[in-house]
Amino acid sequence: MKRIYFDNAATTRTDNEVVKAMEPYFTKFYGNASSLHTFGQEARKALEDSRKKAAELINAKPNEIYFTSGGTESDNLALKGVAYANKSKGKHIITSKIEHHAIEHTCQYLEKQGFDVTYLPVDKYGIVTPESVKSAIRKDTILISIMHANNEIGTIEPVKEIGKIAREKGVLFHTDAVQTFGKVPIDVKDMNVDLLSSSSHKLHGPKGVGLIYIREGVKVEQQMLGGGHERGMRSGTENIPGIVGFAKACEIAKADMEKDTKKVSAMRDRLVKEILKTEDTYLNGHPTQRLPGNAHFRFSFIEGESLLLRLDDKGIAASTGSACSSKSLEPSHVLLAIGLKAEEAHGSLRITIEKDNTDAEIDYAIAEIPKVVASLREMSPFKKGDACIQKK
Amino acid sequence: MKRIYFDNAATTRTDNEVVKAMEPYFTKFYGNASSLHTFGQEARKALEDSRKKAAELINAKPNEIYFTSGGTESDNLALKGVAYANKSKGKHIITSKIEHHAIEHTCQYLEKQGFDVTYLPVDKYGIVTPESVKSAIRKDTILISIMHANNEIGTIEPVKEIGKIAREKGVLFHTDAVQTFGKVPIDVKDMNVDLLSSSSHKLHGPKGVGLIYIREGVKVEQQMLGGGHERGMRSGTENIPGIVGFAKACEIAKADMEKDTKKVSAMRDRLVKEILKTEDTYLNGHPTQRLPGNAHFRFSFIEGESLLLRLDDKGIAASTGSACSSKSLEPSHVLLAIGLKAEEAHGSLRITIEKDNTDAEIDYAIAEIPKVVASLREMSPFKKGDACIQKK
Repeated sequence: MKRIYFDNAATTRTDNEVVKAMEPYFTKFYGNASSLHTFGQEARKALEDSRKKAAELINAKPNEIYFTSGGTESDNLALKGVAYANKSKGKHIITSKIEHHAIEHTCQYLEKQGFDVTYLPVDKYGIVTPESVKSAIRKDTILISIMHANNEIGTIEPVKEIGKIAREKGVLFHTDAVQTFGKVPIDVKDMNVDLLSSSSHKLHGPKGVGLIYIREGVKVEQQMLGGGHERGMRSGTENIPGIVGFAKACEIAKADMEKDTKKVSAMRDRLVKEILKTEDTYLNGHPTQRLPGNAHFRFSFIEGESLLLRLDDKGIAASTGSACSSKSLEPSHVLLAIGLKAEEAHGSLRITIEKDNTDAEIDYAIAEIPKVVASLREMSPFKKGDACIQKK
Repeated sequence: MKRIYFDNAATTRTDNEVVKAMEPYFTKFYGNASSLHTFGQEARKALEDSRKKAAELINAKPNEIYFTSGGTESDNLALKGVAYANKSKGKHIITSKIEHHAIEHTCQYLEKQGFDVTYLPVDKYGIVTPESVKSAIRKDTILISIMHANNEIGTIEPVKEIGKIAREKGVLFHTDAVQTFGKVPIDVKDMNVDLLSSSSHKLHGPKGVGLIYIREGVKVEQQMLGGGHERGMRSGTENIPGIVGFAKACEIAKADMEKDTKKVSAMRDRLVKEILKTEDTYLNGHPTQRLPGNAHFRFSFIEGESLLLRLDDKGIAASTGSACSSKSLEPSHVLLAIGLKAEEAHGSLRITIEKDNTDAEIDYAIAEIPKVVASLREMSPFKKGDACIQKK
């Protein structure tokens, strides 16, 4: 059976070149980067070369890059690290209502630790306006954390403008760039970003690796204590093969970004145009300010989970709600934040396209999705024209 | 040039079979284990099969195993997680003076958070006596954390007896088993262990993966917040290739432990016997209760670092002090704890042997080490018969 992977926001296939780059570091250059001998020096060199490559992708200095185990760890470190290191200055944090759970749940945790968090609303496209950030800043605000692009609906936030406001007000600015890193140009200097999180497996690197960019001079309290690796910012033996693979993915992303974006967004645009011809079907997220590969549909009168399973039967892997916690039956907090009702949120389908996908796969999706939607609507208890049924 | 890797306590070569087991999970079964579609189900199955294999190695139930990014994260989670979840019961923690930095520094951090930590002394072999643990227990003691075996001198601690005392007193018992996991038989039930940390790359698995065993019913507060992975204990997309590799390493360790231990300890015993023929040379750690592959020497009148570099020139990779922070010039806290003076501690050499090593490599070490020691002593300002020079 045909198998089409359209869930690239959840994770991506590791590039063959990335796997190849990692291989020698499992069985040949397998030293511990902290060791003084030649095996250690080889590992250390690979680590520092990787740091340089990752830094180049976002116009950072190598010493501003710290490798972690992934986006979640980077987000935890950014928030807790800044909060605890700067609590004498104030205890107010600004974020949005549509952040990834790694930000949302860490903010909720910090609230229990005595911090005060403002969760900014978004407009119907999922945009956090710079004005709303500006007016939320207080004298005791120490951190603003707004994601670069939303993982569900794909909306790209005006982080440059938000960064400018933060810098003017002397407040630190963190952005969760897990979805944009390697997909959308990032220049941390130009964007006035003080901290940035990213994850390797979202850009065809291996799982289990991520990084945090911390601008030189920014005070962050380490969260993982131990041997003092990563210049004391993150203890634990460095995952050299993983880091080398991540760096290779960064290198490829930098070289191919323009080409890939063109290809991916053309496929996405064609898919959106065709799927929106289906009756009672809508696009969630911003019409233009969105991730190149993200198409997020809302089909009235059906359940996203049934849709997803039916599509899986047809060989199409997609997602509904956030793939990172897709076992949850709660409606997505992002879809609720853009103003959808719970029943509307449940009828969503996220298709995330990457460079590995093909026009033939898009053709197949364009042919199959409307058929599956139609068959589910046939059997749906919620049909067009019915009175709106309120869930208890 | 010959290249001999004798630093297996710092990290090990990833087994070819482990690399082979991981491969399909980079490019074929690359789904996110949280996704509902087939790609996700494949990943989920690999994750749960791996959990079962890891559990089998230590006689745990699969649901008592939680994967992390490594030993350091597991240690942090064990200590902070238990401390925060049980602080209403008491704020006293017992540990030893020879723990890995991931335990030591986390304990120091917890002291700043209002916890009270007792650091138990050890005898000249590095043994923490069960009696010392027993008499340190107070009404407000919530956790005892004693490592299974020391990473520097290789001494194996009487964890079964300590576990028994902890269980009788109703205090939770954690052991950092990073050095013993897959090397020495572990039965968490028999040993009365409530929490245990381990790291994949110490047993020929990949770097960047570890696990924590948490006995069913033990209260631990999650430290990595986000999507609620690992049943809410550790958020972050599961590193499926790494976890599969780790599980393969566990499987191999279980099958080969007896055979490998015999081979490795025979090589180590021969090395120790021969090297101790060198004048003014001593073995650190316990003469028999030690890790099969660990040989930890002390050569009077020389500096371990010079020794290490000279040996590296001869193609022998070894370590001095702890390899995890070998850039530090501070004398090892472990060596100071067993009663060595700073200058004695500095003259140490750790050789850690594994199944990959050969008798020919041992022969080479036996021939070369005494020569290097002799040449360094020739140029040493500290010579036998000199008055003891006190460092300022």
